[in-house]
Amino acid sequence: MKKKLTIGLFGFGCVGSGLYEVLNRSNLLNATIKTIVVKNKNKQRVLPADHFQYDKELILADPEINLVVELIDDADAAYEIVTRALRSGKHVVSANKKMIAHHLDELIALKNQNNVSFLYEASVCGSIPVIRNLEEYYNNDTLRSVQGICNGTTNYILTRLDKEGKSFDEILKDAQRLGFAESDPTLDIDGFDSKFKLQILIAHAFGVITLPADILNIGIRNIKEQDIRFAKEKGLKIKLIAASEKIDQKVIGYVAPQFIQEDSFAYDVNNEFNAVTIEALFSDRQVFKGKGAGSFPTASAVLSDISALQYDYGYEYRKKETTQLNYASGFSTRLFISSTNPDKLKLIPFTEVEETFSSKDYAYKTGTVNFGALTHELYRNHPELFIAFFPQTEGNFKLAPVEENVVLQNTF
Amino acid sequence: MKKKLTIGLFGFGCVGSGLYEVLNRSNLLNATIKTIVVKNKNKQRVLPADHFQYDKELILADPEINLVVELIDDADAAYEIVTRALRSGKHVVSANKKMIAHHLDELIALKNQNNVSFLYEASVCGSIPVIRNLEEYYNNDTLRSVQGICNGTTNYILTRLDKEGKSFDEILKDAQRLGFAESDPTLDIDGFDSKFKLQILIAHAFGVITLPADILNIGIRNIKEQDIRFAKEKGLKIKLIAASEKIDQKVIGYVAPQFIQEDSFAYDVNNEFNAVTIEALFSDRQVFKGKGAGSFPTASAVLSDISALQYDYGYEYRKKETTQLNYASGFSTRLFISSTNPDKLKLIPFTEVEETFSSKDYAYKTGTVNFGALTHELYRNHPELFIAFFPQTEGNFKLAPVEENVVLQNTF
Repeated sequence: MKKKLTIGLFGFGCVGSGLYEVLNRSNLLNATIKTIVVKNKNKQRVLPADHFQYDKELILADPEINLVVELIDDADAAYEIVTRALRSGKHVVSANKKMIAHHLDELIALKNQNNVSFLYEASVCGSIPVIRNLEEYYNNDTLRSVQGICNGTTNYILTRLDKEGKSFDEILKDAQRLGFAESDPTLDIDGFDSKFKLQILIAHAFGVITLPADILNIGIRNIKEQDIRFAKEKGLKIKLIAASEKIDQKVIGYVAPQFIQEDSFAYDVNNEFNAVTIEALFSDRQVFKGKGAGSFPTASAVLSDISALQYDYGYEYRKKETTQLNYASGFSTRLFISSTNPDKLKLIPFTEVEETFSSKDYAYKTGTVNFGALTHELYRNHPELFIAFFPQTEGNFKLAPVEENVVLQNTF
Repeated sequence: MKKKLTIGLFGFGCVGSGLYEVLNRSNLLNATIKTIVVKNKNKQRVLPADHFQYDKELILADPEINLVVELIDDADAAYEIVTRALRSGKHVVSANKKMIAHHLDELIALKNQNNVSFLYEASVCGSIPVIRNLEEYYNNDTLRSVQGICNGTTNYILTRLDKEGKSFDEILKDAQRLGFAESDPTLDIDGFDSKFKLQILIAHAFGVITLPADILNIGIRNIKEQDIRFAKEKGLKIKLIAASEKIDQKVIGYVAPQFIQEDSFAYDVNNEFNAVTIEALFSDRQVFKGKGAGSFPTASAVLSDISALQYDYGYEYRKKETTQLNYASGFSTRLFISSTNPDKLKLIPFTEVEETFSSKDYAYKTGTVNFGALTHELYRNHPELFIAFFPQTEGNFKLAPVEENVVLQNTF
């Protein structure tokens, strides 16, 4: 019954080496790693150098290898490896959310043409089996919304900001020192990583394939100590939320900081933990919580994909075949903006203002804003401006009455 | 690709009528309900009487019906229906945890002999897809423990006790009035319902089939206002936990009240919500939270099983084939007992006492107890005695050094 899998592994970083150990310690799988290809010849690794190869053809051109596991950082190199592997009739397991978010439509077509499986549970929220659940379990329920805390680095930073009353820069430096943030933190703190994961969630939840340029991502880089204090005084927390919701046969999505109330799924998701909440018409609201990153949790998700391949499992994207949905950006939301410079608050046009506050070094405004008024550039070009969705009943967006369909220009 | 399913439905209560509506409102399924058989001819129902039949042969002997959905309360009648349906080569979807907990071994053999599927996601924690996840996703990870709040009625009562400072009897009566508790609340408040669900979890998590008599269930019936106050003073909550853990190739399990610390998965699971936490060697700890009961959430789980059947899905009990585990009761734990009568505290032999407290109308004791010293009779025969596992690091049991293998006599 179980298919024998001969694996070619690309990459031996945190997840790759975790997978190697997990595969060796779990004897339930009929799968062996035949060849490991890495890029850097001089890097110190936990295995002796003779375990590694440096020529990708040793995997891609090896007819005995029927499964390519791709665990490298470089999205462009990963794209080449994955497309070539699929074209060669090899199954592929990948954790590269950035690559998938940019090329999903093509990758689905390729795996269909070549009659192989392309699995990537590890790409979204590490050990939380959210893709498999969306794909298998919720396929016949009418999904309303999928939201999550999908990035451990920003959640770790926000948790410490909430507890310690230090500045964003201080905490970021400390997180980098401790290995919780990359030396170039842009992907995480500007919300790109969360966005790539959200795109994958939207594909499996609603059957809509998006490109990174379709979805707004506002990060946490501009958060100030006063913003944290404002939240605490109101019993709220600030979290970076990746959210998508279906309204009137349209799917909307964004990544942005949100003020979170105590009754939200996100309130008690702290430090490096991730959580995803799935709301469906009949099953009500489900919350999945777990470790979103790390060597073993991520390797465990990769292992689960490998295990499923032994039983010829493949994503079917059933909703993609039946969906009538389009990606839409035209809706309004409650917003909070703040700045050290009160003039900056004028940058965002409110359709309705609820509160304004101003002191000599801090000003904020709350009210309703058309979603199209928010752009990635606004966030990137005005570091004094902190933008966050304001006490938001979960999933409670409103479609704006009339708004031109803004094409976002924030491709990464 | 999709198999056409012609359904015979037994039962049209809360879940059955929910399923009927869900099936009609969700047009993604190639499944129709051909025949509905109910027991009571005179009960008022949401559909006209001509939709119902009263003779079970109209389903069981109908060769066109290839799926029996069994949603009745009576476990004995359900057993007859399910076994006959399986023997007739019909797939079966059931939500009857009591029936499954008593007959799982036989039911697995029957569905194998007849080459059909027997699915029961709705039997454990309503809308939370925990069985499917244990079966499909965690099959190759090394599971350490599965614990949950699996009974909404007791969780609702405990949440209100924690908030309102009223007596158990008052809250129970109110819960019955509001429809959150049955007129005969024994199954819920004495922990039987949680135990049946735990048995199913243990089967899919660890591959061990148990009988109800194998697993101790201590309920919440004897809880006093002083116990609640004691918990609150220490920043703890009391929850009814169904827990199983693997230690040294043995599986242990029980249902009992536990004092819960703020960092536990269970602390913020309130009212009628359920949650299950799965701890595995590599994927770390996952938490699944959602509605455990109710018409639509439960019907949604049934619908998901029906949907999976269209793709020929069946549980494979893969761990059952590979497991070397036995069910074990021989371990020790930290315990809290209290009574209005200090003499009653002597009923349970502690191997080590940590604290004792006594006043004229309330006494308690904490310390270490051999698990075998706890019996269902102790709980049932001494209503003055409240028994709870004491601040317990999640899943932190210790095997007792030596203890005879006690056979529990608490079959329901």
